[in-house]
Amino acid sequence: MSYNAPLKDMLFVMNELAGLPVISQLPGCEDATHDTVQAVLEESAKFCGGVIAPLNHPSDKEPSFWHGGHVTTSKGFKEAFKGFGEAGWQGIQHPTEFGGQGLPKLVAAPCIEMLHAASLSFALCPLLTDGAIEALLTAGSSEQKATYLEPLITGKWTGTMNLTEPQAGSDLAAVRTRAEPQGDGTYKVFGTKIFITYGEHDMAENIIHLVLARTPDAPPGVKGISLFIVPKFLVNADGTLGARNDAHCVSIEHKLGIKASPTAVLQFGDHGGAIGTLVGEENRGLEYMFIMMNAARFAVGMQGIAVADRAYQQAAAFAKDRVQSRDLAGSPGPVAIINHPDVRRMLMSMRSQVEAARALAYVGAGVGDMAHSHPDADARAANLALYEYLVPVIKGWSTEMSETVTRDGVQVHGGMGFIEETGAAQHYRDAKILSIYEGTTAIQANDLVGRKTVRDGGAVAKSLVAQVRATEAELAGVDNADFAAIRRELEQGSAALEAVVDFVVANIKGDIKAVFSGSVLYLRLAGIVLGGWQMARAALVAQRKLDAGEGDAQFYKAKIATARFFADHVLSQAGSLRTAIVDGSAGVMALDVGQF
Amino acid sequence: MSYNAPLKDMLFVMNELAGLPVISQLPGCEDATHDTVQAVLEESAKFCGGVIAPLNHPSDKEPSFWHGGHVTTSKGFKEAFKGFGEAGWQGIQHPTEFGGQGLPKLVAAPCIEMLHAASLSFALCPLLTDGAIEALLTAGSSEQKATYLEPLITGKWTGTMNLTEPQAGSDLAAVRTRAEPQGDGTYKVFGTKIFITYGEHDMAENIIHLVLARTPDAPPGVKGISLFIVPKFLVNADGTLGARNDAHCVSIEHKLGIKASPTAVLQFGDHGGAIGTLVGEENRGLEYMFIMMNAARFAVGMQGIAVADRAYQQAAAFAKDRVQSRDLAGSPGPVAIINHPDVRRMLMSMRSQVEAARALAYVGAGVGDMAHSHPDADARAANLALYEYLVPVIKGWSTEMSETVTRDGVQVHGGMGFIEETGAAQHYRDAKILSIYEGTTAIQANDLVGRKTVRDGGAVAKSLVAQVRATEAELAGVDNADFAAIRRELEQGSAALEAVVDFVVANIKGDIKAVFSGSVLYLRLAGIVLGGWQMARAALVAQRKLDAGEGDAQFYKAKIATARFFADHVLSQAGSLRTAIVDGSAGVMALDVGQF
Repeated sequence: MSYNAPLKDMLFVMNELAGLPVISQLPGCEDATHDTVQAVLEESAKFCGGVIAPLNHPSDKEPSFWHGGHVTTSKGFKEAFKGFGEAGWQGIQHPTEFGGQGLPKLVAAPCIEMLHAASLSFALCPLLTDGAIEALLTAGSSEQKATYLEPLITGKWTGTMNLTEPQAGSDLAAVRTRAEPQGDGTYKVFGTKIFITYGEHDMAENIIHLVLARTPDAPPGVKGISLFIVPKFLVNADGTLGARNDAHCVSIEHKLGIKASPTAVLQFGDHGGAIGTLVGEENRGLEYMFIMMNAARFAVGMQGIAVADRAYQQAAAFAKDRVQSRDLAGSPGPVAIINHPDVRRMLMSMRSQVEAARALAYVGAGVGDMAHSHPDADARAANLALYEYLVPVIKGWSTEMSETVTRDGVQVHGGMGFIEETGAAQHYRDAKILSIYEGTTAIQANDLVGRKTVRDGGAVAKSLVAQVRATEAELAGVDNADFAAIRRELEQGSAALEAVVDFVVANIKGDIKAVFSGSVLYLRLAGIVLGGWQMARAALVAQRKLDAGEGDAQFYKAKIATARFFADHVLSQAGSLRTAIVDGSAGVMALDVGQF
Repeated sequence: MSYNAPLKDMLFVMNELAGLPVISQLPGCEDATHDTVQAVLEESAKFCGGVIAPLNHPSDKEPSFWHGGHVTTSKGFKEAFKGFGEAGWQGIQHPTEFGGQGLPKLVAAPCIEMLHAASLSFALCPLLTDGAIEALLTAGSSEQKATYLEPLITGKWTGTMNLTEPQAGSDLAAVRTRAEPQGDGTYKVFGTKIFITYGEHDMAENIIHLVLARTPDAPPGVKGISLFIVPKFLVNADGTLGARNDAHCVSIEHKLGIKASPTAVLQFGDHGGAIGTLVGEENRGLEYMFIMMNAARFAVGMQGIAVADRAYQQAAAFAKDRVQSRDLAGSPGPVAIINHPDVRRMLMSMRSQVEAARALAYVGAGVGDMAHSHPDADARAANLALYEYLVPVIKGWSTEMSETVTRDGVQVHGGMGFIEETGAAQHYRDAKILSIYEGTTAIQANDLVGRKTVRDGGAVAKSLVAQVRATEAELAGVDNADFAAIRRELEQGSAALEAVVDFVVANIKGDIKAVFSGSVLYLRLAGIVLGGWQMARAALVAQRKLDAGEGDAQFYKAKIATARFFADHVLSQAGSLRTAIVDGSAGVMALDVGQF
């Protein structure tokens, strides 16, 4: 159950598909030279594989536990988190001004992938802390930045996101937690928040809760929500810790997976009120929270890729090791099960989906860097629009992909896969949260349909289709069966995506429920078409390298075969998704509620 | 988390699709009158819903446990099993001559479904006992039948299947357990068996292990395997229990799901040898074991349908109850989430797949009854060939279907689905074993390709395609959008299935690995096409009833809408499966083992 970071594929995607050579020329990204990036990735691989990965299975067996308001995390987590912070990994993508390394998102992405592949449960603490840092960078006052950013970025403290309340799952309009101004610039916060990841733990000196709450005169609904900093320990003017704040963990959840990650119920203000300070302006909390959410959504997409790759690595290792039954083509004795076609099919399915999702996510990270750092404002705006289209796709598709990939990971192990000792089942359990938290796939799909497709009349989506078609034209230039198959399926995929975008835009006014009946399927379609596009681009690069006699021929041949597999087995689903979206909306709402 | 047996759908399928009126006229099936069947199903629903279903979630939280060679089952299991046996449920499909009720498989099928929906873990004990009964009925000596059948059929004792050994998962050729003749008609059995469901427990006085082992001069491989009865307690001539046999449970597994069902490691002969008697003839053990396996495989298919329906019921109840966010079409306040299109889509997907798989399985059971009881030998043979084609499809497709349905069951619950207390996650965990045990889906698919398709040149498969086409012609007689969509997708499905059967038959000699690269996908394709066919037949019946003004119009309208949904959303995948099988085999074996 070791983890070996796929550095070769990561660097290939970064350099050949996601534009690292261009991004490293952007203002502020100059440190991301080829050599630095290679060194950072190697160091990250060493730390994640050597220090974090070995904690993953034991911490599932002996999860974090609650006792009298405290949470003791799994054995080794505290020490590992100390090492993580000290080595600077929390700060990889954050400003040097506050102690970070200031590297582009594209360089952070593989490091984040490695950390999550090593242990989803462990990596969630840095993930939430990243979100808090982003929100404070964007909306915090200079005093708040001075107080909180450096300890967060250096891993001395950690951060949380407090949205959900018992009566309001994904519906933030229903938030009831209230914040009463004390007249001294502080507020007293009262309420209950649930599902707070790392809401309490023993890995850091302080926990900085970012909490959505309503001020007394706030308008109802989402327009009356403000964002507050409520630290576990109040912070003195000199940065030292003051009194324990009135924010207490009353229990943690017993979950299907990510058991080592404590999911807290937090009670604010049961003993007089939790002291908080307002972030940014009143009633703009949702907007700030979306900053955290967008960063977190991208990272959760990376989680899907990470756990899927871990499951793939484990299944491949088992399949090479486990000897059972003769080869179908004849063999003197039993052979390793990787030689059996259905095992191989599952491994190829896992591999090809991981590679496609990784490529799409890293390309997304690169687009995010362009949106942030490009010197030209129009280019920034265009890349921002593209990035915002891609984020729900990366989050939704990569996470649902991880469910099927970790499922195949169990299946490759046969009966052993069902035994917890084997470890394959843990990935299957862990992965299931990814399509739920930080917004379920349906919520990502609402975002994709509403804000990302309908609002611009499908313009960004169509611009992507046009880019896919340009790749199709390039594919025509390679004359063999693999490229012909990739081209055929990509053409059908882009046609399906275009048809669905047209359907969405055309029907949003007249039949909104029909459109949203297929929203998740549209997201899935966008995922496989855009993922298939990246695999096609990868195959073209690989062919060029092979033609030129450059680099590792085995790697490039495998990349082309994997792209072919993805086209035939995954991209080929595009047509049925179009049918389900366009024709299939009729059946979705056909029954009365009473008929269920 | 209650369970209400879907009696209306069950009776509809039995009467209108699976031929109960014809089957109840077969010799030996005359007791299965309409009124008796209705009464049996109602009684079963009462027992399963009232006695077994409430044990399911608590027994997951406090599973069976091992202590010093003994296994204590979860609270309530022992008493429930006593009630189960006394009420005659173990004997429902077994001969009256040995204390059974002698009802057709078609009547047993819904009872089995209900029991498994109530608790997969509990119902596994009767499932394995059924297999032991079938093997003894077919191959046991009259003495063995006299000794073992009545206690097994009346639920006094239980049975097990002992195939797997640590070094040999699915590969029975590698079985090493040995049986040494003692010269007195008995054998001493030595060896280790793993993954033995209910291999040890406290619910019955005795456990009858059916064990695969090799006699001293047996040929190597699967042709040298014999089947032995090795009871936990030896049985005296008068049927009373004698000495404890040397068959001991040394541990039970810690599993992903079905935690209340003890999965034993059994050690035979560590203290001098476990006394066993040969079943049937030497070296024909595999053949007899296949009798148990085929019965068990059908039953495991029913497990898939059962747990999927339980997950559907729980998700639908939650979705009707949980109020969150406004209606997309506008509403004064938040509404029950069942009104949100994506929740509805998931519920329809769950419902339609459960109904399709149930219909196919019950039709299969009816075919099994015809194969067993039809007075005409040719009709028996034809139905047997059909039944044998359907069993791997029912087992493989229904179980993989249950994985996606229980997944959606978690998803409908959102964050609550990930919390074990909610109970949705249990179904997801429990379902994962179903596509693994009694032969993984790949093994079902090997059977479907090898023995069930290639051997007769695709004749049975093609005869099914012809029957599907006859239904397509009938669909053309109803002129509306629902039937047009069902017809269109069914036509594409039957064309895909035919093309794949041709591909399999044409390539088995020339490129066996290409054929088996798509074997699981072929099984899935057969499942959705044959399931879609049943839904189309159901829609036609429903339309006739509506036209005639007969029966429950709401039920029939829902059936048509559900058939339409299945066509657009599930059957529409047929084309992509054909692509993956026919074009996609190229990519499956393309990489060298070293490239993984």
